[in-house]
Amino acid sequence: VPQRSRRLTAAPLDQRAVRRHNLALVLGRLVADGASSRATLAAETGLNKTTVSSLVADLIHWGLVVESDVLNPGSVGRPATAVKVNGEGVVGIGLEINIDYLAVIAVDLLGRQRERVLVAVDNRGRSPARVLSHLTRLATGVLDGVLGQGLVPVGATLAVPGLVDVGRGELMVSPNLGWTRTRLASMLRKRLAAYDLAVLVDNEANLAALAELWSGTGQRVANFLYVSGEVGIGAGVVLNGELLRGAHGFAGELGHVTVDPDGALCTCGSRGCLEAYVGLEALLRSAALAFTEGPGTVTQDDWIPALLERAESDARVAAGLFEVGRWLGIAVAGVANVVDPQAVVLGGFFAPLAEWLRESMCVELSQRWLPAPFTGIEVVASPLGPDAAVRGAAMLSVREILADPATLDTLIEVS
Amino acid sequence: VPQRSRRLTAAPLDQRAVRRHNLALVLGRLVADGASSRATLAAETGLNKTTVSSLVADLIHWGLVVESDVLNPGSVGRPATAVKVNGEGVVGIGLEINIDYLAVIAVDLLGRQRERVLVAVDNRGRSPARVLSHLTRLATGVLDGVLGQGLVPVGATLAVPGLVDVGRGELMVSPNLGWTRTRLASMLRKRLAAYDLAVLVDNEANLAALAELWSGTGQRVANFLYVSGEVGIGAGVVLNGELLRGAHGFAGELGHVTVDPDGALCTCGSRGCLEAYVGLEALLRSAALAFTEGPGTVTQDDWIPALLERAESDARVAAGLFEVGRWLGIAVAGVANVVDPQAVVLGGFFAPLAEWLRESMCVELSQRWLPAPFTGIEVVASPLGPDAAVRGAAMLSVREILADPATLDTLIEVS
Repeated sequence: VPQRSRRLTAAPLDQRAVRRHNLALVLGRLVADGASSRATLAAETGLNKTTVSSLVADLIHWGLVVESDVLNPGSVGRPATAVKVNGEGVVGIGLEINIDYLAVIAVDLLGRQRERVLVAVDNRGRSPARVLSHLTRLATGVLDGVLGQGLVPVGATLAVPGLVDVGRGELMVSPNLGWTRTRLASMLRKRLAAYDLAVLVDNEANLAALAELWSGTGQRVANFLYVSGEVGIGAGVVLNGELLRGAHGFAGELGHVTVDPDGALCTCGSRGCLEAYVGLEALLRSAALAFTEGPGTVTQDDWIPALLERAESDARVAAGLFEVGRWLGIAVAGVANVVDPQAVVLGGFFAPLAEWLRESMCVELSQRWLPAPFTGIEVVASPLGPDAAVRGAAMLSVREILADPATLDTLIEVS
Repeated sequence: VPQRSRRLTAAPLDQRAVRRHNLALVLGRLVADGASSRATLAAETGLNKTTVSSLVADLIHWGLVVESDVLNPGSVGRPATAVKVNGEGVVGIGLEINIDYLAVIAVDLLGRQRERVLVAVDNRGRSPARVLSHLTRLATGVLDGVLGQGLVPVGATLAVPGLVDVGRGELMVSPNLGWTRTRLASMLRKRLAAYDLAVLVDNEANLAALAELWSGTGQRVANFLYVSGEVGIGAGVVLNGELLRGAHGFAGELGHVTVDPDGALCTCGSRGCLEAYVGLEALLRSAALAFTEGPGTVTQDDWIPALLERAESDARVAAGLFEVGRWLGIAVAGVANVVDPQAVVLGGFFAPLAEWLRESMCVELSQRWLPAPFTGIEVVASPLGPDAAVRGAAMLSVREILADPATLDTLIEVS
C-alpha cells in the first residue's frame, strides 16, 4: 500500500469525503473554465487559498492538471500563475463489441479522441473468447498507441448489445450475438492484465445515450429518448440529465417493445418486436437493398451512402424507409405517452437516414402521442456518428476520474 | 400582511430557508415516531434544544402539533412533556371528476379519512360548469362536515382523467369527458371562494400513483408502474420513490400506447390504443356483461361483484377477462422493456379483477419482457381501492404542509 493511500485511510471518513468532493469541485471548475489561477479557483469554489493550493498539488501529482502561465488581458505586471486540465495526462479507453463490428478508442480529459480503430466483422456465431481475443488485439494497439504518446490509460469500458448486469460485469443475454450469461468484465480484465486497468461492461445504447448527454443533444435538452439503430435496436432514456437505469439496470430495451402482437418473429424469441421491423436486416430488406457481402464485411460508412443514393432514385427504397419510420414512430409514440420526453434523438444508422425517416415518424407521433395537439416533440439526428457508444464508453471511464479524482491515488501509486 | 410574515420576510433568505427546512424536519420526525419529547427531537435531528422548542412553538401555533404527556415506560418520576402531530388540526381536501362518478374526501395529518362522498353519475356530455356545480355541492358538504369537527381545511386538489397542465391548473384534454382546455383550478377556486383554499388540479392516475407510493405498495417498492383501470386507462411511473412527471408534465398516458397499429378506434382519435381494449367499456364487452343501467348509474361496488360471480360460472366471461389481461400484458411489457420497474400495481377496477388478469398478463410479460429469464417483475393488486386518486389528491395537499409547514403562516394568519 502506498504511503499517500495509508495517510488518507487513517483520516476520519467525513474529512476524506470532503477532500474527495473538493478535488472533484476544483477539477470540474478547470474543465468548465479552461486555465484559471489558484486565487480565481478559491473565489469560485468558496474554498480558502491554502486548501485550493493543496488540492491543486494533488491534481498535479496525479497528472490531471498542469501549470500554465496565462497573461490576464488588461492587467499589468507579472502574469498570474495559472493551472489547467492536462490534456496530455490520463485517457479513458472505450471498447465495443457489436454484431457487425469491433471498435476501440481512447479519449483524453478534454474529451478529445486520441486513438481509434473500428473494423467490420460478423460476430454472430463466434464465441465470446474468440471475439475477445480479436478485440484484445485491437485494444493492445490502441493502448500501446496512447502509452507511446505519454498518456496514462486509467480505465476501460466495454459496450455490448444486450442486457448487462453492470455490477457483476456480466452480459446476461445478447439475442443477436447469441450469447448468454458471459462474464465479459473479468474475461477482458484478464486479457488486458498487462495494462492493469479497471474494466466495466455496459449496454451500448446506454453508453451512446451518455455520450449524447455529455457531448451531443444533452448539451441543450435534459429529457430525451436516444434510439440506437444497429443490427439490434436499443435506447437510452435520459430524464433530468440522468440516464434511467431501471430497477435491475435493464432499462432502454426499445428494440423488444411489441409493435405488432402477432407480427414477425424476433431473434429474442418473441413476436412483433420493433427490432424485427427496423433493425439493420429489416431496414435493408425494406429498402430492397441486398449487399452481396452481408453484414460484418461492410461498415456503416460503406452502405449508408449507397442507400441514400438509391432512395433518391428508387421509389421502392424511399417507401421502405418511410415504412421503417412508421414503425419507429409507433414505438416511440408509445414511449413518449409514458415518459414524456422533450426530444427523440436518432442514433446509429438512423442518424444519417433521419431525413428519410422523420416524416412518417412524425405522422405517427402526431396521431398516437396524446399531447401532440398541445406541445411538440423534437425528432433530431444525433451529431455523434457511429462512434457514439464506444465514445460514451471511453468518456464514462474519464468521467469517473472527474467525479472522484482521488481514485487515481490508488490506481497510479500502486502500479 | 400579518406581523409574523413580515418578520420572516425581513430575515435573510438562507436563514428563513434553514428554518423552513427545520420545521419540516421536526414535523417529519413526529409523523414518523408518534409522540416525542423536545429533548428526543433535539437528539434525533441534531438541532439544539432551544431551536427545537422554538420550532415546536410555531408548529403548535399553526395547529399542526399538540402537547401530549407521555409516560416513559421504565422511567421514574414526572413524565416527560411530549408533543405529537395534531390529528384534529388541518385536513387536505381531495376531489375527483371521473367519467362515471364524482368524489370528495378529507384526510387529516395522520392520513385518516375524515369525510367522504362518492356518487355515480355519467359526466360524458355534461359541461365543465355543470359538473363543477355538482362537485361543489358535494365539496361544500364535506367542507362543512370537517369545519363542524373543528378541523381546518388547508388545500384542495382536483383529480381529473386527462392531460393536465398542473402549473396553470388547466385540463388540456380529456378524450372521455370530451373536454379540452378548461381552467378547472380557477373555476373551482371561485366556486369554493368562501373556504379560501389553495386549489390544484392533477391527473387522476398520477394522484393514485402518489397514494400508492405514500400508503400502498410504495412502502416497500421504490420503482413501480401503477396502472389505473377506469372508463379511461391511466398510469403513474414511480422511479426511485418519485413520480415521473415528464418534460411537459404529461407522463403516464399508458391508455394511449398503441397495442395494435391498425386496431380499434379510440376516443382520442387514434387506432389500437390500449384503452380501446381494456377500458371499462371494452372490459364489459369482453366479459359479455351489459348493465342495463349503463356506466354512470352504477359504481364499481355494484358491478364488480356481479362480474366476479359470472366469471366463475361463465367460461365466456373468464375468457374475456383473460383477453383483457393479455392486452394489458402486451402494453405493460413494452413499458417494462423501456423503464424496468420492480413491480406493476393494478389499480382501479383492475385491482379486484387481478386474480383473473394476472395469468395472461404474466404469459405476455414472460414472452415480451426481455429480462424475464433473469429476473422477476411483481404484478400486484393495489390495496387502496377505488378511492386511490381522490385519496392521493387529499394527501397531496397534506403533504405540501408536511414538506413546508411555514406556508401555514400565511394561510392561517391572513384569513
